[in-house]
Amino acid sequence: MIEELYPLCRSITGQGLRQTLQTLQRYIPLRMHEVPSGTQVFDWTVPREWNIRDAYVRNSRGEKVIDFRKSNLHVLNYSIPVHLVMTLEKLKEHLFTIPEHPDWIPYKTSYYKENWGFCMRHRDYLSLEDGEYEVFIDSSLENGSLTYGELYVRGDEESEVLISCHACHPSLCNDNLSGVALAALLAQWIHSAARRYSYRFLFIPGTIGAITWLARNEENTRKIKHGLVLTGLGDSGAMTYKRSRRGDADIDRVVLHVLKHAGSTYGVVDFDPYGYDERQYCSPGFDLPVGRLSRTPYGTYPEYHTSADNLQFIRPESLGESFFRIAEILFLLESNHVYVNVNPKCEPQLGKRGIYRNTGGRVSGGVNELALLWVLNLSDGRHTLLDVAEKSGLEFGVIYEAANILYDNRLLVIRDA
Amino acid sequence: MIEELYPLCRSITGQGLRQTLQTLQRYIPLRMHEVPSGTQVFDWTVPREWNIRDAYVRNSRGEKVIDFRKSNLHVLNYSIPVHLVMTLEKLKEHLFTIPEHPDWIPYKTSYYKENWGFCMRHRDYLSLEDGEYEVFIDSSLENGSLTYGELYVRGDEESEVLISCHACHPSLCNDNLSGVALAALLAQWIHSAARRYSYRFLFIPGTIGAITWLARNEENTRKIKHGLVLTGLGDSGAMTYKRSRRGDADIDRVVLHVLKHAGSTYGVVDFDPYGYDERQYCSPGFDLPVGRLSRTPYGTYPEYHTSADNLQFIRPESLGESFFRIAEILFLLESNHVYVNVNPKCEPQLGKRGIYRNTGGRVSGGVNELALLWVLNLSDGRHTLLDVAEKSGLEFGVIYEAANILYDNRLLVIRDA
Amino acid sequence: MIEELYPLCRSITGQGLRQTLQTLQRYIPLRMHEVPSGTQVFDWTVPREWNIRDAYVRNSRGEKVIDFRKSNLHVLNYSIPVHLVMTLEKLKEHLFTIPEHPDWIPYKTSYYKENWGFCMRHRDYLSLEDGEYEVFIDSSLENGSLTYGELYVRGDEESEVLISCHACHPSLCNDNLSGVALAALLAQWIHSAARRYSYRFLFIPGTIGAITWLARNEENTRKIKHGLVLTGLGDSGAMTYKRSRRGDADIDRVVLHVLKHAGSTYGVVDFDPYGYDERQYCSPGFDLPVGRLSRTPYGTYPEYHTSADNLQFIRPESLGESFFRIAEILFLLESNHVYVNVNPKCEPQLGKRGIYRNTGGRVSGGVNELALLWVLNLSDGRHTLLDVAEKSGLEFGVIYEAANILYDNRLLVIRDA
Repeated sequence: MIEELYPLCRSITGQGLRQTLQTLQRYIPLRMHEVPSGTQVFDWTVPREWNIRDAYVRNSRGEKVIDFRKSNLHVLNYSIPVHLVMTLEKLKEHLFTIPEHPDWIPYKTSYYKENWGFCMRHRDYLSLEDGEYEVFIDSSLENGSLTYGELYVRGDEESEVLISCHACHPSLCNDNLSGVALAALLAQWIHSAARRYSYRFLFIPGTIGAITWLARNEENTRKIKHGLVLTGLGDSGAMTYKRSRRGDADIDRVVLHVLKHAGSTYGVVDFDPYGYDERQYCSPGFDLPVGRLSRTPYGTYPEYHTSADNLQFIRPESLGESFFRIAEILFLLESNHVYVNVNPKCEPQLGKRGIYRNTGGRVSGGVNELALLWVLNLSDGRHTLLDVAEKSGLEFGVIYEAANILYDNRLLVIRDA
Repeated sequence: MIEELYPLCRSITGQGLRQTLQTLQRYIPLRMHEVPSGTQVFDWTVPREWNIRDAYVRNSRGEKVIDFRKSNLHVLNYSIPVHLVMTLEKLKEHLFTIPEHPDWIPYKTSYYKENWGFCMRHRDYLSLEDGEYEVFIDSSLENGSLTYGELYVRGDEESEVLISCHACHPSLCNDNLSGVALAALLAQWIHSAARRYSYRFLFIPGTIGAITWLARNEENTRKIKHGLVLTGLGDSGAMTYKRSRRGDADIDRVVLHVLKHAGSTYGVVDFDPYGYDERQYCSPGFDLPVGRLSRTPYGTYPEYHTSADNLQFIRPESLGESFFRIAEILFLLESNHVYVNVNPKCEPQLGKRGIYRNTGGRVSGGVNELALLWVLNLSDGRHTLLDVAEKSGLEFGVIYEAANILYDNRLLVIRDA
Repeated sequence: MIEELYPLCRSITGQGLRQTLQTLQRYIPLRMHEVPSGTQVFDWTVPREWNIRDAYVRNSRGEKVIDFRKSNLHVLNYSIPVHLVMTLEKLKEHLFTIPEHPDWIPYKTSYYKENWGFCMRHRDYLSLEDGEYEVFIDSSLENGSLTYGELYVRGDEESEVLISCHACHPSLCNDNLSGVALAALLAQWIHSAARRYSYRFLFIPGTIGAITWLARNEENTRKIKHGLVLTGLGDSGAMTYKRSRRGDADIDRVVLHVLKHAGSTYGVVDFDPYGYDERQYCSPGFDLPVGRLSRTPYGTYPEYHTSADNLQFIRPESLGESFFRIAEILFLLESNHVYVNVNPKCEPQLGKRGIYRNTGGRVSGGVNELALLWVLNLSDGRHTLLDVAEKSGLEFGVIYEAANILYDNRLLVIRDA
């Protein structure tokens, strides 16, 4: 999926984004929304639609020294159309490079200020000769629409889990396509599974897409009980979770329990108002319980927002582990009931029900028995299973299994908040 | 007292337990309760009464290779009566040993599943020869009653302090008799002293005894303001406190203040639902403020539940220190009033009352003056004396003395919650 | 100012104190209050007024071995008048020295118990010869009044900031005059500046002065929103803050934020009921949000309450730094508004207002942009600017500047509690 999506020249509007979502529709029943340019969304306005067909810079010998067809990163994203001849000196005002990584093309954008430019390898930049250059960008910036994809999967409850990823970056794999691909696979899985919560998957352009969705679905946000922004999930670094603005929302505790018991190193950072679309979901007027899951945080690896964030940079085993962790997180969310012990006064006699050893005296291991006792002791209507897991120091799965045994023996009933 | 009680073959019902309580009646006016077999107590049923007169295993030469009269630990507690001849191979299915401690007899029970068996030294087990064995257990398991002892000592207030110990283990000293003896001595002392709280001492069989008492005294539990389960108080290890389920009940804070200022190392563990009768007192339907005081925690010393937990294992000086700590705890509970400063606006002039140095200038030590000021400053109706001790970093006794001086000078009145 | 005030023989009443306040009136429009001896103030009584003209001890050769005119510390403060001849042995019962610092004169008082005495260098004490001595103290202890100075500066709000210092010590610089001088300079500055809060400056005798003021202004104390006791601000040690009794009052958080970001080491201690007039302001009947700012805490430097706390002991640069920190504290208090983001749903578009970079892609530093986002995100009516600073880890000034930019762009409104 990522290989197929990689060559498309995505932006916050336009055909590249639209084709990306159409590709996803082959995997999941994604609904596409088109929001006209000029639509007011809170403090913002949906911009004109940008499309690009070709772009190059030719030297005086007619050789293309920069060619959009070789990499869509070469063009400053949202460049206005130009066709000019100019000196190298003038041209240089429109060129972007990364001197410290001379073989990488940077990724640059200018969505909200009219501009044009080219991004190129610093090595190539240094070899540009003096003289006249022909600059050509065959783009258009016209009224059209902003596109986003949405998949709603109804569960037993109206309460929703929001999974959001941005799909507006051109040929960048970790930042963009890793989240898109994993969200699509999760949607495929959730769609086919029994589920307690309803799920809403968003494939949107960053910032303006989240703002647009929130503006059009303001009422619906009250149903969002848990949420994750997914991005940067394919590199080889450790899993890193950024807390929601609330800091101790269920999603925060759930993700950290999963990461803590996963057996690998992991990172956790407090909410800050920079980053991806958690900025919008966690703006004070919404303050949704939405955290962000990544591997190495954006901006802290050199390949970030360069041509080096390519198909080789992401690894199948990292994508696989990321998927598995998110699946564990969703499993925990789904299973995290509040139970009530129907025999709260003293312990019930587990032995007569055959779920407890019968020969006392020297204590044997009995971790499962301990889990049974923890669940019974804390099932007072005020503790979720995750609370029990954390208080007991046991892993959620062990507690979950104990709760199921007790539930099957009619010693517990479910009483969610 | 412990030497006298040691040889009795106690169990959760029966004559051994009854004789134990009768022995205690020589020291304290203990009331004995008999609860008939078959009585429903919450999810449990009072079991049939077990008694044993003799038991042995004889080899083909008629020699007793196991003899109950040498140690009552030799019989699986609650063994049904048997008289059989069987091969060594068959017999071994009913033998319990501790290979890693070949000279110790383990202690085993089978209260709620009909079974029989023998416990023996592993060294003797290895020397058993092939051949036929005569197995004889002269026990009875019949309708009768469960016995427990209770002593209620009325204080100025109806609120109660609960002191509970189990008295159902046969010849085991630390686990069982250390708590029984200390609770009896405490009861003797409390009975003869002026006291604020009412006290309730329970000498009960573990688990089923606590459940039975709670079932019969459900209403009364609302009066229990503080409680301690006493056990394992005679070994040479450090004092260890297990918090109540609430974790920050008064009893938790009081015990930890005493242990912290006692000048010895000590341990503290959070509540968990394994252990002794705190399991029942802290079940979610009761959630009583009851902690457990021990020295080395059960199960973490090798002598636990073996014949090595004998009269030599417990030490008079450990029992003495345990008694002294519990006495300090009860003193603190009794003295832990909330006072109100009757001159709350600015400091009262202590100098004119002769309880403050009169020559100012260079500050001298004056710890007691500092204690006076702390008590005055925090006696706002929201702080107990223990709160004052903890906020000031001073020991409770110093604060208590300061409060008494101020009270005698009519600068404080008592206003308990 | 300190040099001018240094020679005056101050006490808790009398001409020395009165002259001190008159001197301050040349700098600030201080109002002087006279409270008659015998006035009841809570549990205390305003004492008789003490004045002293001369005092000496003469040996049998007529030589003055102690002379009040050389240092006013020589006389036990509040000494009753005496004119006696006595042996050295008898005299010694009235002499105070510091053996470990034989060249320093101690400072001693006896306000509330009639007594007389002399303080002297231990070196001189050792050289006293046997024989008769003439003792002369030309003091008076008569009905008069207790004097204190007060300056009230009205601000936009009725809520007050209290600045209190004691002015009752004779020739002692750090303990007494450093606080007096800095409070006077602050008053001068505040008086001339626009201000949100009203300010109340108190120049009072320690303990009895604070008690007297509180007794006469009990109703007014409800307006006190923040307060500082200033003393010991001229020595070369690190700034040290003593928290208010509340422990987490705004003043506590504000002072600690300033000290933390000042770039020097600093100390913080929890409230305790010893010390200066915070003892009275923080008595339980008032419990005002008043902390104490000093450099090296009293009693922990050897010069404390001796003649070595002189004009050389305090340093201009220390006084200057102290002034600057207090000014920062007051600035922060004044600026610590609660703002409300008027576009709370999603981020407002900062780019179109020209206060945000327009070319996205690789993230540049942008600390100020981060501050803008933090202020927007946390301006939900529940966070002060200091809350924003602490949550973001940024210094208050950076947050304040960001808030001003946003306020000027009409993205924020002020909504104080």
